[in-house]
Amino acid sequence: MSLTRVHNLSISLDGFATGEPQSLEAPFGHAGERLHGWMFGTRFWDAGGSAGVDDAFAQRHSQGIGAEIMGSHKFGPPGWHDDPEWRGWWGPNPPFHTPTYVLTHRPRPPLEMAGGTTFHFLDATPAEALAVAREAAGGQDVRIGGGATIVRDFVAAGLVDLMHLVQVPIVLGRGVRIWDGLEALEDGYDIEAVSAPSGVTHLTFTRRATA
Amino acid sequence: MSLTRVHNLSISLDGFATGEPQSLEAPFGHAGERLHGWMFGTRFWDAGGSAGVDDAFAQRHSQGIGAEIMGSHKFGPPGWHDDPEWRGWWGPNPPFHTPTYVLTHRPRPPLEMAGGTTFHFLDATPAEALAVAREAAGGQDVRIGGGATIVRDFVAAGLVDLMHLVQVPIVLGRGVRIWDGLEALEDGYDIEAVSAPSGVTHLTFTRRATA
Ligand SMILES: NC(=O)c1ccc[n+]([C@@H]2O[C@H](COP(=O)([O-])OP(=O)(O)OC[C@H]3O[C@@H](n4cnc5c(N)ncnc54)[C@H](OP(=O)(O)O)[C@@H]3O)[C@@H](O)[C@H]2O)c1
Ligand SMILES: NC(=O)c1ccc[n+]([C@@H]2O[C@H](COP(=O)([O-])OP(=O)(O)OC[C@H]3O[C@@H](n4cnc5c(N)ncnc54)[C@H](OP(=O)(O)O)[C@@H]3O)[C@@H](O)[C@H]2O)c1
Repeated sequence: MSLTRVHNLSISLDGFATGEPQSLEAPFGHAGERLHGWMFGTRFWDAGGSAGVDDAFAQRHSQGIGAEIMGSHKFGPPGWHDDPEWRGWWGPNPPFHTPTYVLTHRPRPPLEMAGGTTFHFLDATPAEALAVAREAAGGQDVRIGGGATIVRDFVAAGLVDLMHLVQVPIVLGRGVRIWDGLEALEDGYDIEAVSAPSGVTHLTFTRRATA
Repeated sequence: MSLTRVHNLSISLDGFATGEPQSLEAPFGHAGERLHGWMFGTRFWDAGGSAGVDDAFAQRHSQGIGAEIMGSHKFGPPGWHDDPEWRGWWGPNPPFHTPTYVLTHRPRPPLEMAGGTTFHFLDATPAEALAVAREAAGGQDVRIGGGATIVRDFVAAGLVDLMHLVQVPIVLGRGVRIWDGLEALEDGYDIEAVSAPSGVTHLTFTRRATA
């Protein structure tokens, strides 16, 4: 069965997955690189990195994934819609290597990149987008790649089977919060917390089988 | 040196230290007892409980404490100000066993209880209240007992040396949030996270020595 998964979504103690304002110079606003520092120390990021618990979690990002869905603000900074040359943050060979669906109210024609990534632009509900991505994934799983808005919307719509958050010990105070609208999430998920020597805490939400 | 400490303040994943609405029947609102379930399993609460990490943290609540400061909403439900007979939630022998300062805009005369607890009612700034409690603590530490509003105010005023929060794997969605107004807390504190077999994560904030 093809699952819908979230991986490596980094949040502050107060639940923000990005700071503000987002811009070309500062894609995460005042959060800078602090939300992702834990990842830079892993083998997943750097062959000289550690193979500990942070790496074990990070590696799952691409295992068994056949397509990604991301939000418009993950794809580019404010204003990218008006730049016909914008091809994402990631250079010619983006780290997705699958069909990748960008949810946006201003879609454009698909962009074929090197390494197996093709960006498709979709104006669709979460359920519709998931059906399209699922089909493209060819039996593999679909990753909801972020940002917080998209993840929240897919979780709220009951579409996510597995969610991995990484709580980083900083208090951002402002940005986009993952928790808003997710009251009583524990009713649908088994939740596990594992703190790591790096200082972050991995939170996993595994959808409970319904009777 | 006498320190100012917060212990066992339980919060949801989204940072709420209480649900809503608070009432005589439901002091924690829709959170019920879920924020404190982790504590019921410890020796601190029950002699037959576990002596593991949850207990180690919980026990520090009273070690070396000479006075407590609490908020008006911890002392009683909405309306307690209008009930001259209200003596707190805790029966004749409250678990504080020290002078205990209730911050309120409607102070009343002190209430001497059994077991060493005397409730004093203070309309004062956090710094003023702390000076009074510190004096009463006779060289021991002062605990800021909650709720969230009081803890937040004392932390924001730079008065807290050590804060222990217990993050419980539920999403409350509403209530009083501990994090509001505490942006960049990590600048002043060393932060440690330890997940426990019970499912909670203990977060400790230790004030960094200033040069
Ligand atoms: N912390 C992490 O691990 C992590 C991971 C990924 C990204 N991020 C960061 O998170 C930030 C982006 O997150 P975000 O929450 O601001 O935004 P986002 O989730 O990336 O994108 C939200 C936007 O996508 C479009 N959209 C959403 N649903 C749609 C639908 N059903 N149909 C059509 N369009 C739809 C809308 O944009 P338009 O209408 O303008 O097109 C909406 O404003 C960036 O700073 C990024 O760097 C963080
Ligand atoms: N999660 C936990 O571990 C934990 C621990 C303790 C309590 N709680 C719960 O938290 C809730 C209470 O927290 P809360 O955040 O709502 O309120 P709180 O912090 O207990 O009390 C805030 C109130 O105290 C009074 N106050 C605050 N600062 C003052 C000052 N400088 N001078 C005079 N009065 C001042 C004001 O009330 P007035 O003006 O009305 O007097 C203010 O509304 C309760 O549900 C309680 O059961 C939870």
